[in-house]
Amino acid sequence: MSVTAPDGFVAAGLHCGVKDTGAPDLALVATADRKPVPAAAVFTSNLATAAPVQVSRRHLEASGGQAVAVVLNSGNANAATGDAGRSDAERMCELVAQHLGCAPEHVLVCSTGLIGIPLPMPAIESGIPGLVAALSPDGGVDAAEAIRTTDTVRKEVVVRDTAVTVGGMAKGAAMLAPDMATMLAVLTTDGGAEPGDLRTDLQRSVRETFNTLSVDGCTSTNDTVIVLASGRAGSASDLTHSLTQACDSLARQMAADAEGATKTVRVLVTGARSDDEARQAARKVAESQLVKCSLYGVDPYWGRIVSELGSAGVAFDPDLVQVTYGDVVVCAKGVAADHDADAVLAHLQARDVDIVCDLGLGQGTGSILTNDLTHAYIDENMRTS
Amino acid sequence: MSVTAPDGFVAAGLHCGVKDTGAPDLALVATADRKPVPAAAVFTSNLATAAPVQVSRRHLEASGGQAVAVVLNSGNANAATGDAGRSDAERMCELVAQHLGCAPEHVLVCSTGLIGIPLPMPAIESGIPGLVAALSPDGGVDAAEAIRTTDTVRKEVVVRDTAVTVGGMAKGAAMLAPDMATMLAVLTTDGGAEPGDLRTDLQRSVRETFNTLSVDGCTSTNDTVIVLASGRAGSASDLTHSLTQACDSLARQMAADAEGATKTVRVLVTGARSDDEARQAARKVAESQLVKCSLYGVDPYWGRIVSELGSAGVAFDPDLVQVTYGDVVVCAKGVAADHDADAVLAHLQARDVDIVCDLGLGQGTGSILTNDLTHAYIDENMRTS
Repeated sequence: MSVTAPDGFVAAGLHCGVKDTGAPDLALVATADRKPVPAAAVFTSNLATAAPVQVSRRHLEASGGQAVAVVLNSGNANAATGDAGRSDAERMCELVAQHLGCAPEHVLVCSTGLIGIPLPMPAIESGIPGLVAALSPDGGVDAAEAIRTTDTVRKEVVVRDTAVTVGGMAKGAAMLAPDMATMLAVLTTDGGAEPGDLRTDLQRSVRETFNTLSVDGCTSTNDTVIVLASGRAGSASDLTHSLTQACDSLARQMAADAEGATKTVRVLVTGARSDDEARQAARKVAESQLVKCSLYGVDPYWGRIVSELGSAGVAFDPDLVQVTYGDVVVCAKGVAADHDADAVLAHLQARDVDIVCDLGLGQGTGSILTNDLTHAYIDENMRTS
Repeated sequence: MSVTAPDGFVAAGLHCGVKDTGAPDLALVATADRKPVPAAAVFTSNLATAAPVQVSRRHLEASGGQAVAVVLNSGNANAATGDAGRSDAERMCELVAQHLGCAPEHVLVCSTGLIGIPLPMPAIESGIPGLVAALSPDGGVDAAEAIRTTDTVRKEVVVRDTAVTVGGMAKGAAMLAPDMATMLAVLTTDGGAEPGDLRTDLQRSVRETFNTLSVDGCTSTNDTVIVLASGRAGSASDLTHSLTQACDSLARQMAADAEGATKTVRVLVTGARSDDEARQAARKVAESQLVKCSLYGVDPYWGRIVSELGSAGVAFDPDLVQVTYGDVVVCAKGVAADHDADAVLAHLQARDVDIVCDLGLGQGTGSILTNDLTHAYIDENMRTS
């Protein structure tokens, strides 16, 4: 059920014809009573902002952080499409609003897929009436299915604590990097919140979850995380913890489904001068083509890790650095450490790999979740058609 | 002849046993009369600085920019080797100095190969007497051969203008990125220069050549470019132009020999707010895993290029950007442009690819030379042993 798990939400998903494979490509999440509720979003930092990002941002501002629905399509990013793209994104919202009986500003819109191709509006226009008609408290799965692109599995989450429930769905398998991934996520909650507080809670959650994920260092034109809060579970409360749990689960699902990857790798940097420097250094290691090749090859070549730390643009002393694979220290005080090579190989052969780099300079820590670089990643990305 | 082309230099190269393949692994370039001449160097910006970089930097400072010789080994980087590594690098210089009859501070040292493994000093010590004895005006080829690692070809250059000759040799095929590549280069010239001017000339040349090359965005622990100026062709002159020509040739040879690459790609950004922003944007495009996959796949997917420009951290207007493959504009004013698709494919199928991105904002221009990301790159880098 994912996005329909919290009280007060309905959803639907279907195939309208954006994808020529017949796979589902249009999704809708809405409040059950079609009344606006507090909403917040975090958008890509990419300046080549896709049309739906521009339109959603404008609608949230115009409505003062209130929304009734989010409409999403996969198969086309509606990015690098100029004025026509913006009109198309607005038209998607208008059509949904018309069929829901709400204001267009209360509809947000997301697109994901190829960049630079006009959105096939006849398909989307023909799909929207049926999409609205199909809205249901059981529609979460259909909606999560309809936002997949190269994802091999649906990505859904439900987090329940004593007070509130958070539900979520997401897509994302490549072009994944800080601020954020090629990823869309829609979260719902029955928790209550003022729009401003909801935005703060969401920003905190995204910073600690989606923004610590980097599959390939590429930041997409369309990244969007949206949350709608129905308030049915009671009065306002701090939703940061539940939202962070939900976002963390979705981010891990993305890492596990990253294009062509054979491994999910957590790079943790400790002992940095600050948390920011720790995360910057972890990102440099995690995004290194050479380190990612070593991980694919199950090659414990820690020299590349030290080299990346040294060129990460943070304080670094080559004579203090320590590198650990799993529990095994392979480099101490900057030089090779005697160690159990079989234990290192056993750790690197597993699906989940942990690398810890201690810079020995301070108390700063930070981590990035990433993957190995494989033949299959190249296969998946060398041709789009 | 390369490094021995300018008057006043001798060189040699041989196998001493660092590599277990029997391939040449020890090289020496020296002044013919074994007297010190003005020398300058540019070293890696990586803070995980290899021992030979630390030692060469110290020697140049101690000598006030004078050197007699450069000794180089391949097969081992002598990086992440701590105090023992520094002693080994000093010992290499001392032995060469002893056999040449000069001060140890007048010998510079470079290493290239795997990181984190102690240098096999017995092999190097046994090799140095024969290396010095083999010094010859015809030894340039042997020296260039002995610094190869994964290079498939020797990299040499001779630039002659009316006044001076510049000769050079280099190695480098991966871990190639700004400030600088995993690359070593030794240049010689019969031009005259004060050490300070020579350093300025070299820095200018490196900035415009080696530092505009990025094979994989990785900056090595050992990068070094050294120039020795014998002055035999006459008095002091501006060597920037000849040095830049020589460095440019060596950088192009590296790009053409990049590990596993099927293409050499020039990414030129124009219309940026400044030259620095143009180069930063070009680098973001050139280092994008997704763009590099598209280039390997001969896929004219310009949307990824626009997306990278938008996340390059420079001023960007999505409605002004233009992207050109070869001579064909595929994106104008931020949206798809009608174009001759066959002409684009023909250009992308060639070995040399030109991508021009016009940001439409100002007069800044900058370019980066790079390669495609291929199965063979992964094959070459997934295992080091």
